[in-house]
Amino acid sequence: MPIARAYAAQSARVPLTPFSMERREPRAHDVLIDILYCGVCHTDLHHARDEWGVGVFPLVPGHEIVGRVAKAGGAVTRFKVGDAVGVGCLVDSCRDCAPCRQGEEQFCIPGAVGTYGSRERDGAPTQGGYSTHITVDENYVVRIPESLPLDRAAPLLCAGITAYSPLRHYGVKAGDKVAVVGLGGLGHLTVKLAKTMGAEVTVLSTSPSKRDDALALGAAHFAVTSDTDTFTKLAERFDFVLDTVPAAHDYNAYLGLLKVDGTMILIGVPTHPTPLSAFPLVMRRRKLGGSLIGGIRETQEMLDFCAKHDVASDIELIPIQKINEAYERMLKGEVRYRFVIDTASLRAER
Amino acid sequence: MPIARAYAAQSARVPLTPFSMERREPRAHDVLIDILYCGVCHTDLHHARDEWGVGVFPLVPGHEIVGRVAKAGGAVTRFKVGDAVGVGCLVDSCRDCAPCRQGEEQFCIPGAVGTYGSRERDGAPTQGGYSTHITVDENYVVRIPESLPLDRAAPLLCAGITAYSPLRHYGVKAGDKVAVVGLGGLGHLTVKLAKTMGAEVTVLSTSPSKRDDALALGAAHFAVTSDTDTFTKLAERFDFVLDTVPAAHDYNAYLGLLKVDGTMILIGVPTHPTPLSAFPLVMRRRKLGGSLIGGIRETQEMLDFCAKHDVASDIELIPIQKINEAYERMLKGEVRYRFVIDTASLRAER
Repeated sequence: MPIARAYAAQSARVPLTPFSMERREPRAHDVLIDILYCGVCHTDLHHARDEWGVGVFPLVPGHEIVGRVAKAGGAVTRFKVGDAVGVGCLVDSCRDCAPCRQGEEQFCIPGAVGTYGSRERDGAPTQGGYSTHITVDENYVVRIPESLPLDRAAPLLCAGITAYSPLRHYGVKAGDKVAVVGLGGLGHLTVKLAKTMGAEVTVLSTSPSKRDDALALGAAHFAVTSDTDTFTKLAERFDFVLDTVPAAHDYNAYLGLLKVDGTMILIGVPTHPTPLSAFPLVMRRRKLGGSLIGGIRETQEMLDFCAKHDVASDIELIPIQKINEAYERMLKGEVRYRFVIDTASLRAER
Repeated sequence: MPIARAYAAQSARVPLTPFSMERREPRAHDVLIDILYCGVCHTDLHHARDEWGVGVFPLVPGHEIVGRVAKAGGAVTRFKVGDAVGVGCLVDSCRDCAPCRQGEEQFCIPGAVGTYGSRERDGAPTQGGYSTHITVDENYVVRIPESLPLDRAAPLLCAGITAYSPLRHYGVKAGDKVAVVGLGGLGHLTVKLAKTMGAEVTVLSTSPSKRDDALALGAAHFAVTSDTDTFTKLAERFDFVLDTVPAAHDYNAYLGLLKVDGTMILIGVPTHPTPLSAFPLVMRRRKLGGSLIGGIRETQEMLDFCAKHDVASDIELIPIQKINEAYERMLKGEVRYRFVIDTASLRAER
């Protein structure tokens, strides 16, 4: 069995520390991947600290995985050794329910197998990409187009598809006025993708310091949400509000920024419920919707779209040894705009 | 000027009492209507008691108005004296904004003129249908098809269109599984209309006593919401949840009843916000939307649909003198399913 080096949380209350584990030998349809880079998603932190109460420990986070195929099972047809590939939030699903058959494995009715903190269909616990290797069924692996830099592609596997899928599903089109709430890892990719699709993007942020970045990333406008005037000035302005903020905030205020028939889409997931009034929904026939990553087929489509339009994540490359510090900086919003672990730092560790 | 007898609330804290007022002489495009019947809507009570803090007193409620044209202005083309007509929640709007031009006057950007508790574009206060007469621009008047009984048609002007519009707008179609939450005036018409459109309807109610009625009204299934098993048994069952309840309840629990991509539509409007979690929206890409009555053109379409399919409200006809008692009974859910005022009782008053 291939041994992978990794960093794991041994419980919800301790920092991540070195860990080693076995990865399974590739079965007929599996590929063994040498992980080169892994993005650091806010969800990793939610799970490592068990903030959603679903933790399985020890836990190796990481679901923005980019690497190269090191070994392929006998029946693998889609990839060959050396191919640049990616793995996102899912490594399997039932393959038989209506969402699976429609290629929307993220909504698998019995439940998709998460890349970490979950269990394979044979019961084995899954462990994520803060590691040197991973073995995954080829049907849950995507191809990284050649023109994408591998390190900057890693965050596309979760943040990228989380931004792309709702823009497509809810029908954002050229000329639409789109507000993006929050300019973190997810937000900055939402700005790039919405802009690339032709939308007029406004970034709404608590941090006045992000104005220049917002405009550089492609936003046409920027407004500070701590200024209550913002909600008056921009009332009924937008076709869509893409809300990337994973902390509690007032949905009602943001709903007021939508036109008649406008849609606000939650892609950040605050841990706790917040008060919602029926009035802003009813009085303007607005909708509040959610979206969850995307299926494997759509993830490939997103990567191809990014390659074609030269979209990738702004990143800060870190060695795995800085992961705990990175979590603290992420909580303070001190990253522009995604930490990516260079797993060379894991291979070098003695 | 025509003098109308009416019942009015003189303030938010007193019962409705007899009142008389002038209605304007019909202008070129106006019709003067002899009111025959007026439905009693929960919104009347919200306004009479100023629960939404927007009250203008004295206030004559009533926006489910059916009567006959008594006099027509010189330029009126759509109606003649004697025609059976209806007036709903709106008596005017700006006629120039995008929603008005699209025939969705309920979303008029400067604000539509409400049938009561509002101001005409010339500044005159509006007073509603708990009265013997009303003068309204013909463009905000609809025709009651001959086959509809006039008293049972009255509640269609608000409750009927409030149920019909979201079923059309959100695309409810034959075979869809639709849950209707709350079996009051609005709920019972939602059941009838959804069933008539071919949906498989399930009524969700706090009152086990409403089971027989629900099935008689056309529901295929009935479940009691005070039984928490209901939310487990019916999880992920519905394409749509139509929520007619005007009191606080847990939206998250009802969102859990929707399939992937399902939509819950708020048509009842609780006064206060309630906690909403992002999880049920995000994890199944569900939507929570609102809907507000409908435009004039769609109100006519709804009446024609009801006439064609023999849909009307179940009512309890009352004299105006029973209105305060009716409010109390409405609050206790003791009406099957809409009080309608017979204005003969107003004309008979000395």
